Amino acid sequence: MLDEVTMKLNIDPYILSALREDITDEDATTNSIIKNKCKGEVELICKQDGVICGLDVFKRTFTLLEEGTTFDVKVNEGDWVKDKQIIMVIRADIKTLLCAERTALNYLQRMSGIATYTKRVVSLLEGSNIKLLDTRKTSPNNRIFEKYAVKVGGGINHRFNLSDGILLKDNHISAAGGVKKAVEAAREYAPFVRKIEVECENIDMVKEAIEAKADIIMLDNMTDQQIRQSAQLIDGRAQIECSGNVTAENIERFKNLNIDFISSGALTHSAPIMDLSLKNLRRIK
Amino acid sequence: MLDEVTMKLNIDPYILSALREDITDEDATTNSIIKNKCKGEVELICKQDGVICGLDVFKRTFTLLEEGTTFDVKVNEGDWVKDKQIIMVIRADIKTLLCAERTALNYLQRMSGIATYTKRVVSLLEGSNIKLLDTRKTSPNNRIFEKYAVKVGGGINHRFNLSDGILLKDNHISAAGGVKKAVEAAREYAPFVRKIEVECENIDMVKEAIEAKADIIMLDNMTDQQIRQSAQLIDGRAQIECSGNVTAENIERFKNLNIDFISSGALTHSAPIMDLSLKNLRRIK
Amino acid sequence: MLDEVTMKLNIDPYILSALREDITDEDATTNSIIKNKCKGEVELICKQDGVICGLDVFKRTFTLLEEGTTFDVKVNEGDWVKDKQIIMVIRADIKTLLCAERTALNYLQRMSGIATYTKRVVSLLEGSNIKLLDTRKTSPNNRIFEKYAVKVGGGINHRFNLSDGILLKDNHISAAGGVKKAVEAAREYAPFVRKIEVECENIDMVKEAIEAKADIIMLDNMTDQQIRQSAQLIDGRAQIECSGNVTAENIERFKNLNIDFISSGALTHSAPIMDLSLKNLRRIK
Amino acid sequence: MLDEVTMKLNIDPYILSALREDITDEDATTNSIIKNKCKGEVELICKQDGVICGLDVFKRTFTLLEEGTTFDVKVNEGDWVKDKQIIMVIRADIKTLLCAERTALNYLQRMSGIATYTKRVVSLLEGSNIKLLDTRKTSPNNRIFEKYAVKVGGGINHRFNLSDGILLKDNHISAAGGVKKAVEAAREYAPFVRKIEVECENIDMVKEAIEAKADIIMLDNMTDQQIRQSAQLIDGRAQIECSGNVTAENIERFKNLNIDFISSGALTHSAPIMDLSLKNLRRIK
Amino acid sequence: MLDEVTMKLNIDPYILSALREDITDEDATTNSIIKNKCKGEVELICKQDGVICGLDVFKRTFTLLEEGTTFDVKVNEGDWVKDKQIIMVIRADIKTLLCAERTALNYLQRMSGIATYTKRVVSLLEGSNIKLLDTRKTSPNNRIFEKYAVKVGGGINHRFNLSDGILLKDNHISAAGGVKKAVEAAREYAPFVRKIEVECENIDMVKEAIEAKADIIMLDNMTDQQIRQSAQLIDGRAQIECSGNVTAENIERFKNLNIDFISSGALTHSAPIMDLSLKNLRRIK
Amino acid sequence: MLDEVTMKLNIDPYILSALREDITDEDATTNSIIKNKCKGEVELICKQDGVICGLDVFKRTFTLLEEGTTFDVKVNEGDWVKDKQIIMVIRADIKTLLCAERTALNYLQRMSGIATYTKRVVSLLEGSNIKLLDTRKTSPNNRIFEKYAVKVGGGINHRFNLSDGILLKDNHISAAGGVKKAVEAAREYAPFVRKIEVECENIDMVKEAIEAKADIIMLDNMTDQQIRQSAQLIDGRAQIECSGNVTAENIERFKNLNIDFISSGALTHSAPIMDLSLKNLRRIK
Repeated sequence: MLDEVTMKLNIDPYILSALREDITDEDATTNSIIKNKCKGEVELICKQDGVICGLDVFKRTFTLLEEGTTFDVKVNEGDWVKDKQIIMVIRADIKTLLCAERTALNYLQRMSGIATYTKRVVSLLEGSNIKLLDTRKTSPNNRIFEKYAVKVGGGINHRFNLSDGILLKDNHISAAGGVKKAVEAAREYAPFVRKIEVECENIDMVKEAIEAKADIIMLDNMTDQQIRQSAQLIDGRAQIECSGNVTAENIERFKNLNIDFISSGALTHSAPIMDLSLKNLRRIK
Repeated sequence: MLDEVTMKLNIDPYILSALREDITDEDATTNSIIKNKCKGEVELICKQDGVICGLDVFKRTFTLLEEGTTFDVKVNEGDWVKDKQIIMVIRADIKTLLCAERTALNYLQRMSGIATYTKRVVSLLEGSNIKLLDTRKTSPNNRIFEKYAVKVGGGINHRFNLSDGILLKDNHISAAGGVKKAVEAAREYAPFVRKIEVECENIDMVKEAIEAKADIIMLDNMTDQQIRQSAQLIDGRAQIECSGNVTAENIERFKNLNIDFISSGALTHSAPIMDLSLKNLRRIK
Repeated sequence: MLDEVTMKLNIDPYILSALREDITDEDATTNSIIKNKCKGEVELICKQDGVICGLDVFKRTFTLLEEGTTFDVKVNEGDWVKDKQIIMVIRADIKTLLCAERTALNYLQRMSGIATYTKRVVSLLEGSNIKLLDTRKTSPNNRIFEKYAVKVGGGINHRFNLSDGILLKDNHISAAGGVKKAVEAAREYAPFVRKIEVECENIDMVKEAIEAKADIIMLDNMTDQQIRQSAQLIDGRAQIECSGNVTAENIERFKNLNIDFISSGALTHSAPIMDLSLKNLRRIK
Repeated sequence: MLDEVTMKLNIDPYILSALREDITDEDATTNSIIKNKCKGEVELICKQDGVICGLDVFKRTFTLLEEGTTFDVKVNEGDWVKDKQIIMVIRADIKTLLCAERTALNYLQRMSGIATYTKRVVSLLEGSNIKLLDTRKTSPNNRIFEKYAVKVGGGINHRFNLSDGILLKDNHISAAGGVKKAVEAAREYAPFVRKIEVECENIDMVKEAIEAKADIIMLDNMTDQQIRQSAQLIDGRAQIECSGNVTAENIERFKNLNIDFISSGALTHSAPIMDLSLKNLRRIK
Repeated sequence: MLDEVTMKLNIDPYILSALREDITDEDATTNSIIKNKCKGEVELICKQDGVICGLDVFKRTFTLLEEGTTFDVKVNEGDWVKDKQIIMVIRADIKTLLCAERTALNYLQRMSGIATYTKRVVSLLEGSNIKLLDTRKTSPNNRIFEKYAVKVGGGINHRFNLSDGILLKDNHISAAGGVKKAVEAAREYAPFVRKIEVECENIDMVKEAIEAKADIIMLDNMTDQQIRQSAQLIDGRAQIECSGNVTAENIERFKNLNIDFISSGALTHSAPIMDLSLKNLRRIK
Repeated sequence: MLDEVTMKLNIDPYILSALREDITDEDATTNSIIKNKCKGEVELICKQDGVICGLDVFKRTFTLLEEGTTFDVKVNEGDWVKDKQIIMVIRADIKTLLCAERTALNYLQRMSGIATYTKRVVSLLEGSNIKLLDTRKTSPNNRIFEKYAVKVGGGINHRFNLSDGILLKDNHISAAGGVKKAVEAAREYAPFVRKIEVECENIDMVKEAIEAKADIIMLDNMTDQQIRQSAQLIDGRAQIECSGNVTAENIERFKNLNIDFISSGALTHSAPIMDLSLKNLRRIK
């Protein structure tokens, strides 16, 4: 959750860096026109339907430039919003409004796009108990924003990074000399609060993983039949995750399988943005 | 261009930050399995057709972790590559290969996706002299990568940020009290090496912009007829840029108009990634 | 493990910061005496018995100042070393040796102290299957060094920080409205790769935690009898951790209890340093 | 002194870094339970007797996360506090209280531990005019906190680092070709506001140091008799510092010697922490 | 313009770094004398005539240390001020006043010195339409301050850095194989909002530059006659800039030439500082 | 001294920051012309007589961009060089040469200017034993470079900053309630390796300072007669420093006074730069 603590410690540095990417010394256009402080307001307007996500990040972009910026927000984070809907009215010095605009929108559009796409994919699983997971296929230096957007869209976060989760893939398994040895090594090495997940490409690996008492078994690129057989073998002794180029177009094939999770990189790397815009800037008072 | 100087000064900090996003203390999985240094090699393989872009960024991600990493690269930056094609073979300590993999691919996939999409849009303008421009609608903290990818795909970069280009939009113009005053103010204020661009929404504004001797006139969301009329009025006295939700789907309508540039935010905010993968990791020697 | 990747990404910034803490502009004493480059060597000598830990961090402190520093290391990380034993010989420019000395020793002494104390506490559990855990009671900005030292001493790492592990304490439980609700909320919220640990202060809480299917149950400051009763109730359905001011002086009371883990803050906050020294600096060639 | 200026410029970056060490993205436990803002209060309670030190650092850890945190502080910095005594009551959003807790305590416990130990050692010198000095044997990236704690405990700070004090040791002296040449070189080279201190290991060196007009003469690891003889030779012409593995256990041997200062690394590297705890968290209003 | 946005994003980091350069841990003198908070006021007084410049930077240095500092400012940025004139009265904690003093003055003196010198040089061009430009010959890490000071003094900024302006010099031209090829390459490569400037050392190069449609032609170290001839050839088709060791002593020779701009490195690298001082510190209330 | 350690820890960050100030994304001019790597060489040539200073900083600017840059240096740091003299030949990739040029020269010109001016002022004191001191009136974020240049020019460094030297000025003295109390407070508070300096504005203060056993007495803006009288009173019991707008124009008045030091802010804030240039760039091999 992007609470105040996370915002201060882990989000602000990224937003400031993004603002500096867009303003290396000054907004030359604005400064050539507007010489004095002057309060203004502007509307944030939706230009297509979708899940709004990133309102706090959007607001923070302005607040970091002008602490006293005020926001009249008309929706809640995660709401389904409509084309032409006014999301909020922002009031600040006109320079602040103009300087933060693009950076704030770049975050909001991307996050809302991911939340919207995730909600769509999640809805395709309705009726099953299967949960949708994200991956580490995120835009560099945007993971915290994108994983949060997946959550707002109704998805679940897989591990955040290489340090906070154990996922034994083919390379680890062959280096360790088999699934069993790999799981044992991981259990001995990793902080004891970690679950151990094993990626399996065939039924034999699944059997080994069960025997090694893996906490989660990932079935990678398996046929429906293989998945069914695996699920029967596992029989509740581990959680089951399926993966492999899953998108909105193909996810429904998993719906009737007896699995716990599906992970999809497309949620973060292929969601189209949601179009949003600042309109009707005007001076006030 | 991502030459060595830009790489050292302006790219390395982003890549390092992205690597730290993915490894906050260690790759716990790899470290639990692999206890000693061990040289390995792995192949970078294409999983769909497209323009490969970001090879130096991809390589740098490994090199920043292990200076002696070697790369046997089989294509050139900007080449059209094919599904299943081997792009390069990377040799380094196996830990380096596993730790840099995801971050390196996240950059390469996104950059190649943008270059591929740009090339496609550019090709739709073939036969005309119109050039394709990007915008500032980039992923936060990824602009330098994404603007470069546009170039590799055959596009042209618009201004990099708010500090290095003058673009007078409706808000600036109304604050200044008209196009003419806005252009004069900008010419007086901005470093003299800047061109002055004015965004015009109707024919009257175009007339004013001509009179004010704007260097570039942007026709925003105009009809074909408006654009034709504007071009006649301008008659070579300024460069002409058209903009407004331009995508591969609608760009061809501009093809026969007498304009110089079309700008499209979609190049950077909506290009799907190109699928690439590291495969066949093996120990060597 | 402090492998090369972790060293580059997560250790170097701390060491550089520590070097800058000790050298804000220059080593004024050394620079007033030594005007030219001059190769030298010096011995790292033990001044008491214990577990040597942090050799790579020690070496890195020199290497960050002079890449070509060489080390003739006579022991292995984690070895039990003896008073007066030569640990290694370091060769570099004499200025490098003098400038890095204190910072390198400050790391090595603290890490070896923690490893030594941990080994001692671990040895007190010999004959049982109980494993020793550390806590988050580490010196600020030294956690990665201190948790690693615990591991070298034979301990196991608990969660690294607040982001990578779930530990429901009394405050969380009362805020959630009971153990069961707390566990459910955590399971729903946290990345699915996390285990859920619950801190219990009495038998009723233990019962609730079992019912809620907590992965780990921490028995905090319980009497031996309470621990025995809890272990019987849990009966293998969750891992058991005991905690509460555990030190070398009192840990043996847990030895015959049927528990999995004991955590001790003292490992990192109260281990005395191990005395080590650089001696016999001399010019070479 | 940790006044506001030092706090802003030189302390805040360390505290923020320590907070980020403990929260790399979010406090997952707290965020899974507490969904909304909710004011709370908690008590800081002593769990053993000692000198309280670091109150401003403790408070700052909370304030950096939530500016409006309030503190009802019941003691003064440097007071001798008792087991079970309430030190202060802290009021802030409950998330702030939970997120800052460990980092704030890690600082306070360590600083109070050092102040307590220093006070104890200082008291052993009562009746003499000898002053107690610290050294550079501090925890990396914690020197400013630890040297301050020594002062609060009644000790005096030796030089802060290699840049702000001149201390000629055996290596410098032999490199310079004798005490006299070393002192001359230092006097010529160093900023003229520096005193020159020389470390002497025997009576001959002391004689040379006197002749060279050293401002301070450090008698390193000398016998009582050597120290007495040195003091007679020096006869007020330089300040005298004694050093060499000085701890609470052995410092009284120096008490009747005619010296000015004793330095002890143990003050910072071996002081046990003082146990402190946050208790009785409750919602308010 | 140093508006609030630029201040927050691009100025504050420099000022904070400068404050840390002057206070690596504390103001030892002030802290030894002043133990408690104590409000005070002090006057900023001119000690010579000139253009005052950098008032916001000066104020920010105090505000960064103490947000509530107040300023009673008696002049406007860019005013011509007189010896002994009181510029402003500053009120803050006395420690803030003493700690910020030197850093704040170091900025203000340098910026006012540059503005004063620039105004003097600009006045020598009075009666002509020629504008005065600065260069990139600025003090490292002070460019944003110094270029702003040039503007306040009545000068115009040339490009800010190597990234935001195109200036083809002899080396580029010879590498490209002539002026024409160089201009074409630049036009193709650079963001399309850039003007293209060419440095010419003789009449032939000027001819080529005209033909290549350079936007700006810089006449470097030319004789008056060469400049006249160039201006005739150019005849309004490009802007003309003259350069080459231009100072207050020699600039008038250009006054009657038909050129647009003169650039002078001396504005930033040789302007003497303006003497300013904080006086009459007193406690208040 | 700018030895390797200081360079790595304390100089490199400034140079990198200065390079990034000049290249926020790329050298657009160079990159538009030069597409491939291409080795070149260029000469560093003097354009006026003076003391060369900053050769290592100059070289480092190139090396930070291209480690393998080579330098054929024909003079020694601190040498008196002549107009038209070739200082060194630099060989590197042509892009490196073009990108580092301005930043490297900006450092070298300023440092050589300060060294040259200092040498001139020092020479005016020839025949006396008086030493010349610098002050804290340096360009922000350039102090380490400028204080070093003073040393190369034959001056002596006063304290580096507010943390490493004690200088009691009028404000401190009146706050403390007199010179004596101020000196005592400082002696008690400051690290014991510090000398105590007192600024005196009249004979009475000098008397008090002597009595308080100040280590250094600064006579600020005194007449020759006052200085003489002060020197007689002090009579070797403290070092004497004179200050107050000292420049090359007025320093000789102090020459026959019986004082130890003169400090001059003009050394760093008013020294004109020394003109240096890179010439004759050519491709090699």
